Amino acid sequence: MNGITISCDGIDGCGKSTAIATLERVLTEMGLPGKTVITREPGGTPLAENMRAILKDGHPDEDLTDTAELLLFFAARSQTYEHIIKPAVDNGDVVLMDRSNLTTEAYQGGGRGISSEVIDNLKQMVVGEFEPDLIIYLDVPVEIGLQRSRGRGALDRIEQSGVKFYQRARQRFLQLAETRENIVWLDASKPIDEVQANIERIVRHWFGVATVR
Amino acid sequence: MNGITISCDGIDGCGKSTAIATLERVLTEMGLPGKTVITREPGGTPLAENMRAILKDGHPDEDLTDTAELLLFFAARSQTYEHIIKPAVDNGDVVLMDRSNLTTEAYQGGGRGISSEVIDNLKQMVVGEFEPDLIIYLDVPVEIGLQRSRGRGALDRIEQSGVKFYQRARQRFLQLAETRENIVWLDASKPIDEVQANIERIVRHWFGVATVR
Repeated sequence: MNGITISCDGIDGCGKSTAIATLERVLTEMGLPGKTVITREPGGTPLAENMRAILKDGHPDEDLTDTAELLLFFAARSQTYEHIIKPAVDNGDVVLMDRSNLTTEAYQGGGRGISSEVIDNLKQMVVGEFEPDLIIYLDVPVEIGLQRSRGRGALDRIEQSGVKFYQRARQRFLQLAETRENIVWLDASKPIDEVQANIERIVRHWFGVATVR
Repeated sequence: MNGITISCDGIDGCGKSTAIATLERVLTEMGLPGKTVITREPGGTPLAENMRAILKDGHPDEDLTDTAELLLFFAARSQTYEHIIKPAVDNGDVVLMDRSNLTTEAYQGGGRGISSEVIDNLKQMVVGEFEPDLIIYLDVPVEIGLQRSRGRGALDRIEQSGVKFYQRARQRFLQLAETRENIVWLDASKPIDEVQANIERIVRHWFGVATVR
């Protein structure tokens, strides 16, 4: 039996953690069969978390090249996919993903300017044809995202990439959300209880459709 | 003015460290202009050394996937190339490299069975057309390499890959050494003073030819 994969993606400060918590609550209430497995990218396994530390912390005297950043994200994704996501899907579990390849397309593609062809080739190498069944894209204006990130403390290496980087990333998210059927756009700039209610509505509707089929 | 890059490659235990030390001594005696910069792969910068630690140490409860291993090597290479090798070459220095892309072709290509096309595409992405001016391939039978590695203490994650892995890697090294003009084959199973004398001969000859041109 095949499991179900749902990812939340968006720029930093879009509210992914709250969204994942809401998804977990709603799925529990719906009483789906199988476990709920929560993971995050980059990370989720000890080795992927080591790679996450390099990506987030960087080094005060050394820039991480855009290419090294890209390759590290995919190296971490390989660990997360092979050791968590794939076994859980094979086991019939529900996997809640805090970020997916979509973020790489927006951040490293849109934000850093790396070509879609390069990113697509790496994706094929690392996860093959895998694609989350549902992606909730949490859309917030860049100013709101950065304000929320700053509210959580010192910005990490990626969060320090600046307003223009995030504007390019958001544009790419918006483009991709418009063209791909597995992505649902959500206004994540609204008050938190409204966002949570909308996430619940999206998920119940999505499973309802899936059940009727 | 362009610098000069010389790499030493071979299976673990082939004697690269001694070879690099010999190269450094000979080049100093020859009185070449420019600094001598020594680097190693993976490693040589703080971030690349962090990636080296993941590659060498691994994790007791988690296998590093072959794909993650490959991507980490290239992420580290990007750091080493952009922050050490390229600036040194631009500065007219002599760069002595403890391993190069040739080892990736032998280990991840020959040893792990990853296609040459995948490796070549990553190489192009990370270092473009760069290729060391001279590669000394230190050839030793697998048994001798492993024996020397064991003599240095506990084997690291890669050194634990087994005899067959190293046999496939050596085969690939031998194939590539036969077909590429910038690779010089050296019998590194001989006594150390003989190997050192041969390295000195190779380097003096190579620079002699380069001067005559």
